Amino acid sequence: MGASTDPRLKEVLASLVKHLHAFAKEIELRQEEWDIAIDFLTETGQICSEERQEFILLSDVLGLSMLTDAINNRRPSGATESTVRGPFHVANAPIREMGDSINLDGKGESCQFEGRVIDIHGDPIAGACVDVWSDDADGFYDVQKPGEIPKWNNRGRFITGPDGQYRYTGIKPVSYPIPDDGPVGQMLGKIGRHPFRPAHMHFMVTAPSHETIVTHTFVAEDPYLLDDAVFGVKETLIAPFEHIGRDTEWRSKFDFVMVPTGREDGK
Amino acid sequence: MGASTDPRLKEVLASLVKHLHAFAKEIELRQEEWDIAIDFLTETGQICSEERQEFILLSDVLGLSMLTDAINNRRPSGATESTVRGPFHVANAPIREMGDSINLDGKGESCQFEGRVIDIHGDPIAGACVDVWSDDADGFYDVQKPGEIPKWNNRGRFITGPDGQYRYTGIKPVSYPIPDDGPVGQMLGKIGRHPFRPAHMHFMVTAPSHETIVTHTFVAEDPYLLDDAVFGVKETLIAPFEHIGRDTEWRSKFDFVMVPTGREDGK
Ligand SMILES: [Cu+2]
Ligand SMILES: [Fe+3]
Ligand SMILES: [Fe+3]
Repeated sequence: MGASTDPRLKEVLASLVKHLHAFAKEIELRQEEWDIAIDFLTETGQICSEERQEFILLSDVLGLSMLTDAINNRRPSGATESTVRGPFHVANAPIREMGDSINLDGKGESCQFEGRVIDIHGDPIAGACVDVWSDDADGFYDVQKPGEIPKWNNRGRFITGPDGQYRYTGIKPVSYPIPDDGPVGQMLGKIGRHPFRPAHMHFMVTAPSHETIVTHTFVAEDPYLLDDAVFGVKETLIAPFEHIGRDTEWRSKFDFVMVPTGREDGK
Repeated sequence: MGASTDPRLKEVLASLVKHLHAFAKEIELRQEEWDIAIDFLTETGQICSEERQEFILLSDVLGLSMLTDAINNRRPSGATESTVRGPFHVANAPIREMGDSINLDGKGESCQFEGRVIDIHGDPIAGACVDVWSDDADGFYDVQKPGEIPKWNNRGRFITGPDGQYRYTGIKPVSYPIPDDGPVGQMLGKIGRHPFRPAHMHFMVTAPSHETIVTHTFVAEDPYLLDDAVFGVKETLIAPFEHIGRDTEWRSKFDFVMVPTGREDGK
């Protein structure tokens, strides 16, 4: 490697080569398996498009996404834990009035999401942006079926006031399979793993001078909680979903606890 | 993983996950580096086409191809060593008469390749197929410039007779850069590595009841011999190239020593 090389890139590649070679030696990689691996990676790249990111899926099902999350988001206890962003976040969702609905297609069981954005001392954070997104009643995000599902269905951004409160109406999310008609899905099938994720609501919470939180809340009692295809579940992210009024009306309360940026501890 | 899983696939994936996670932990993979890795793999997949295999290139420059070759081709000493096949082999090249030329475009310094296909006891192997391919005088294989370079330029297959001899005229190969206008070439550039391979003639030698040899002969005294971009050089594969007649006429002698299939030793 040349002298002008970025030392970090050099470190990363040296480590990559070391572990890649250790892997190949440990399993005594066969020539025909190498051929299969080349084909697999090629197909994985070729199925990627504006609407689909198969390499993120691969990273997710191999547990690399959650590991990267753990390495990069060491927070003091009491702060909200993070989990995978997933491939379906879309930047610049509509900013809605506090209390508004994000559900545009009218399908699904209505659910009121509410809680506070606070700091580690319990004080409310004003001006925090709570960016939320979930699948629809059939398990699909709007971007997966453009034209069919209304754009920005089950998405929105809410800005907290002085009380740090957020509140909006969406639907009780449903569990869904990650896209399993591509190379990654085929691989899961071959090793007998299902592609399902437990039902969850996505959140990205940002606030000035605080670390961004990218996380989910998981629907308590979902059958896939112990067996998430992408290993995204953390105990502290399992949220209560309680009936209010009729059977198909729910409420889920969850507080987000942010930590200031630039702290010395834990990171 | 399910009970019906292929145990080998299970073993391979468990080892992959172990080393992939060890890599990420060792370098403390940053979120933005993970983003770059996803983009890199996606671009690598998307540039692949009928004429181009960027993942093979990636495997080559990371030394994985040579490692896989070493794992899969442990031969007794005295047998011809193998090296990377590379991305430019084309099956079913024309079968030519012994002594014929493979050079269709008339460019380059003429070179006579000759030698014997023998077994480990030194006995000639009749009916062996010697499949050969090289770049042209400008460093390109025919498949890299279809329409511009004649199809099958510097390619051919030769079948040995009872004496095991092969002989054909080609050109003295020239060193060339691996395709460096894609993600892999950009990566090499960033770490200050050049993309060149030392000049070489490709051979795939097959014969009934013998292990196929996929290898090169390297042009002795090539400046890149100690610094092959894909780590393909082995000392025993460096072949003599001697002047015959005029300055631009060469001869290169090399014998291929095959081992029988199904042997107990070494493999
Ligand atoms: Cu390792
Ligand atoms: Fe999701
Ligand atoms: Fe070559």
